[in-house]
Amino acid sequence: MPYELYYWDGLQGRGEFVRLALEEAGADYVDVERTGSGQMMAILGSKTEPHIPFAPPFLKDGDLIIPQVANILMYLGPKLGLAPKDEASRFVANGLQLTIADMVGEAHDTHHPLATTLYYEDQKEAAKQRAADFIKHRIPKYLGYFERVLTQNSKGAQHAVGSALSYVDLSLFQLIEGLHYAFPRGMKPFEKRYPALASLRALVAGRPNIAKYLKSERRIAFNTSGIFRHYPELDQDAT
Amino acid sequence: MPYELYYWDGLQGRGEFVRLALEEAGADYVDVERTGSGQMMAILGSKTEPHIPFAPPFLKDGDLIIPQVANILMYLGPKLGLAPKDEASRFVANGLQLTIADMVGEAHDTHHPLATTLYYEDQKEAAKQRAADFIKHRIPKYLGYFERVLTQNSKGAQHAVGSALSYVDLSLFQLIEGLHYAFPRGMKPFEKRYPALASLRALVAGRPNIAKYLKSERRIAFNTSGIFRHYPELDQDAT
Repeated sequence: MPYELYYWDGLQGRGEFVRLALEEAGADYVDVERTGSGQMMAILGSKTEPHIPFAPPFLKDGDLIIPQVANILMYLGPKLGLAPKDEASRFVANGLQLTIADMVGEAHDTHHPLATTLYYEDQKEAAKQRAADFIKHRIPKYLGYFERVLTQNSKGAQHAVGSALSYVDLSLFQLIEGLHYAFPRGMKPFEKRYPALASLRALVAGRPNIAKYLKSERRIAFNTSGIFRHYPELDQDAT
Repeated sequence: MPYELYYWDGLQGRGEFVRLALEEAGADYVDVERTGSGQMMAILGSKTEPHIPFAPPFLKDGDLIIPQVANILMYLGPKLGLAPKDEASRFVANGLQLTIADMVGEAHDTHHPLATTLYYEDQKEAAKQRAADFIKHRIPKYLGYFERVLTQNSKGAQHAVGSALSYVDLSLFQLIEGLHYAFPRGMKPFEKRYPALASLRALVAGRPNIAKYLKSERRIAFNTSGIFRHYPELDQDAT
């Protein structure tokens, strides 16, 4: 039975971290909302389902419903051959994935610092402040950290954990792509400052299944409905 | 060898979710920074450690370093007898814990909506807007969800997952305590609106080891250095 991924149609968002793992592994999966089924809201609103998710994305594997990106990837990782083999390293991978999730949450809050219930246009001034801080302080702090993770990896700087590709590498790729889309000016120093991350980005982009996926219709383009949004007025040196 | 918990001294913060699990289980642990060792910053800044955490809290178990609250609890849960026995339910527990973490992050952002690098006093007006939205929309959304999780649990509404106490129950207790401390007016409808959560709160508070801990010097009082902060001007109906 194929895995069922539930996420909003029309945006990459948090669902994309799961899609990349499924695509790299060539897994059999259905991106349910993109079939127009409308089942997602029924599951979220169910009064009988014993394991209701708070929000998408969530994965359905048979009867089991698994919410939260890092949780989905921790579940899928070993099944897809994208997790370290030893148990200790799996917790290292999960710790990194949760730190990626934290940065993704902060990237979201650059355009929604006051309330998710308000439009961006109604919190633009606060967004400018938050985005400026994000570019100045948070991007260097997080990317500097991930660069150290790669360079201090005892198995070599090619991968985040151990000596093989894992879902963490795929998520770092997506994070870097999203930051470049949202903040092209803010990310200009990227390749120079973070050479190990830049190599990882190229390595992932060159994986045959990922390269095929990125060119396919299944890859939704970045847009201003997602987590990463390109609003020129939030980028560095906006006037 | 005792578990070593690394977290800032002087506040409950995110470390408290881990402390409650260790205390409930009567585990042998050292709250390292409270001994004045200063080791935490050395680990965070290490240029050689292969598995550096991004931020506290992190747990050290022998050579293994595990960061991120939900990750620490997923690791400790089975060892402390505070996780479900079957693997599928462990992913259910982790999904809930990550949703608790999301709400904790949003509670933090009520007093720091623009930048963690700025003082609260320098983002007070934005904080008022974010806190108002949090109380009006996010508390009901999250607590309504957790109430449904309890009432739709096929093993009974006493626990979040399965029929036994888990670390998720302990974390829900801490979340509820923190919200009451930060927003006493906003939380007034709590008992009436969320009876299953209110029962869970009482059940956890009555566990002998938790009751002992809460009265001990090891339990730091809530204060305005933590995640949950009581600023009367951010509470409901502030004038």
